[in-house]
Amino acid sequence: MVEVKELSRYEGQEVTVAGWVDQLRVHGKVAFLVVRDGTGYVQGVLVRKELPTEVWEIGTALTQEASVKITGSVREDARSPGGFEMGLSHVELLGPSPEYPIQPKEHGVEFLLDHRHLWLRSSQQRAGLGVRAEVEQAIHDFLYQRDFVRVDTPILSGAIGEHAGTLFATDYFGENAYLAQTGQLYAEAACPAFRNVYCFGPTFRAEKSKTRRHLTEFWMMEPEMAFVDSDGNMRFQEELISYIVERALERCGSQLDLLERDRSKLEGVTAPFPRISYTDAVTRLQEKGSSIKWGEDIGGADETLLSEDYDLPVFVFNYPRGVKAFYMKQNPDDPETVLCDDLIAPEGYGEIIGGSQREDDLELLLTRIREEKLPEEAYGWYLDLRRYGTFPHSGFGLGLERTVAWITGRKHIRELIPFPRLINRLYP
Amino acid sequence: MVEVKELSRYEGQEVTVAGWVDQLRVHGKVAFLVVRDGTGYVQGVLVRKELPTEVWEIGTALTQEASVKITGSVREDARSPGGFEMGLSHVELLGPSPEYPIQPKEHGVEFLLDHRHLWLRSSQQRAGLGVRAEVEQAIHDFLYQRDFVRVDTPILSGAIGEHAGTLFATDYFGENAYLAQTGQLYAEAACPAFRNVYCFGPTFRAEKSKTRRHLTEFWMMEPEMAFVDSDGNMRFQEELISYIVERALERCGSQLDLLERDRSKLEGVTAPFPRISYTDAVTRLQEKGSSIKWGEDIGGADETLLSEDYDLPVFVFNYPRGVKAFYMKQNPDDPETVLCDDLIAPEGYGEIIGGSQREDDLELLLTRIREEKLPEEAYGWYLDLRRYGTFPHSGFGLGLERTVAWITGRKHIRELIPFPRLINRLYP
Repeated sequence: MVEVKELSRYEGQEVTVAGWVDQLRVHGKVAFLVVRDGTGYVQGVLVRKELPTEVWEIGTALTQEASVKITGSVREDARSPGGFEMGLSHVELLGPSPEYPIQPKEHGVEFLLDHRHLWLRSSQQRAGLGVRAEVEQAIHDFLYQRDFVRVDTPILSGAIGEHAGTLFATDYFGENAYLAQTGQLYAEAACPAFRNVYCFGPTFRAEKSKTRRHLTEFWMMEPEMAFVDSDGNMRFQEELISYIVERALERCGSQLDLLERDRSKLEGVTAPFPRISYTDAVTRLQEKGSSIKWGEDIGGADETLLSEDYDLPVFVFNYPRGVKAFYMKQNPDDPETVLCDDLIAPEGYGEIIGGSQREDDLELLLTRIREEKLPEEAYGWYLDLRRYGTFPHSGFGLGLERTVAWITGRKHIRELIPFPRLINRLYP
Repeated sequence: MVEVKELSRYEGQEVTVAGWVDQLRVHGKVAFLVVRDGTGYVQGVLVRKELPTEVWEIGTALTQEASVKITGSVREDARSPGGFEMGLSHVELLGPSPEYPIQPKEHGVEFLLDHRHLWLRSSQQRAGLGVRAEVEQAIHDFLYQRDFVRVDTPILSGAIGEHAGTLFATDYFGENAYLAQTGQLYAEAACPAFRNVYCFGPTFRAEKSKTRRHLTEFWMMEPEMAFVDSDGNMRFQEELISYIVERALERCGSQLDLLERDRSKLEGVTAPFPRISYTDAVTRLQEKGSSIKWGEDIGGADETLLSEDYDLPVFVFNYPRGVKAFYMKQNPDDPETVLCDDLIAPEGYGEIIGGSQREDDLELLLTRIREEKLPEEAYGWYLDLRRYGTFPHSGFGLGLERTVAWITGRKHIRELIPFPRLINRLYP
């Protein structure tokens, strides 16, 4: 058995391919059968007079998504997807597919999400998730080449996270455990062991938010770097994003084309990226008609408004302390703000990275934990990192689905994760 | 600032290194300060008469794990860790470390686990977790090179898994959700989209087991391959394991040496691996004195007993249906067994892989789901994969911590995950 992606090597030879029926067109005594095998599409041609009756009958009765083995000789054909077609001598039905639910017509999104396990087979979904997989490998490669050590942080923990009240809880042999909202605090602990580290895995937010930018379970990649300040942090972020975009352009051309992504929007995405302080961003937003006031967080609509000014992702840095997490380092030049950055994608795709220098002063960190009324005892180990050889360090979290939504130009992040979890969706 | 790993490039130059104090020895008017910066260790030499009093005093008062910046000229010295030392001209204390809890003496394991956030800094832990990170990247590379598409499967789901009764549950906006024990069933759904896929992430077992082979949260890598049978599945497993071992030998030599791993035990690990049927394994175990009877699962002690016969990992294949999961394919030549394999590591490290061909017959699968009294409605989507274009396919799960324990020769898998979760441990 050969895979469709290798067909060019078998020109003139008889081969067998196994896959799923994508399309069948019968024109009198000739039929065209397009089969997808997961590595590509190939068209098989059935000619009635050249085939045993049985093979013709099986071949022309196939329905969408039936699984088949087709055998035939490979020949070049520019009109065939992939450039090669097969003149079929045999068709074997492996698994029938009566009344396949997803038809080549418009379906409602809830119907498609209910059938996500089948919807994955459609070309747009394959393209989007293919880019996701490439971006993940690109991230691993980028960090591995730079000697970052991967440190897998736990999902189950005591009440550690950014946003109390949006935690999923579970009974852990009689104790309460919570699902991680971030691996960052654990990654910080690994810096003195490995200097530069990262975690990359699922994170959880029990937010009752229904916007197209939110999933209750999403993947986040979080590097943490010892002896790097907020400026170095932003420089690293723009290098990483430039690399990811370049690699997607280089290796995912066919997927981006299928999704009709305007590649010119991505081609100019190279470091450095523009930077604007939170304070300047608020002024700019007010000029553009926003009602935002200094001290408020920048919401999704305002992020979109701001991103209109730029063709590149833009850093908004040094937010007010009150809208950011307790662990961000106080700005020594302006104690009302913290040394942080949000990276906002162009074209209205919103925040794809949130980063900061971390508060490395034990007393200032304790003050913030108490201000936020966080359970101090749960942070005992985290405070130890400031008790024993505290050090300047910075890091960030990259939201995988949002990043891939931007790169692929897709509107809904729920399509960029294989099995989305939304407030009303736990199935399939 | 430079990193220790790059010091050789700066011979004869004055540089600054930042890191944590590993050791300080003061011999009268000369002091030797070993600093770890996460990329390596370097020895700094302080000579009293060449330094301002203040620098000498700061340098010779440092305590374990204080964070420092040291400045000095780089010179070759074979006795220094890494081959270079620094003649120090300046020492800056960044963060003191009074009474660091982990001293260079024996500590009890519970104490060390309570201080896991600091214990990570010790050389053995760094070595073991460094090998873990290399193995993870090796797995991604191996699969990427073979066009496997990574498909991230959900953690939160309805009651889907192998072992009912060992699930962690959470309230999901009024519904019950459970933490995934496996991503396999979801990976199966992605095969018709991408042919060969894998997932790699945390999985959960609420097992009240305290053996050294169990974690409640552990990382598993699960490939799934369309049109691959049980034999092909085993062939793929042995190729993957051979690659991982070769890469660890090639790139983790210093870590394996530090852990005093007998490398000769790994050097011969190349495919093919021996195979023994479950039935023959039971006979062999009985000969060796085990009380196991046909139809029982092979426990940890018996796995160790069996592994004594082999220098290589050994496949035990075709177990009785009754001890294996419902989704494994019935053996057409012996319906009392299923087409599965466990890969048992040598030297008593136990099962590192469990794999099988999947049941692709809708009726047989339904029969098994009913036999096991599983909630049929939760498997509706999984059954759809057999309703619409069912196809032969196989896959397996590789337990990351067990694999790394074997490669590194460590006894306890809890040391091969950064923050272990055990039945009595959720902190730090």
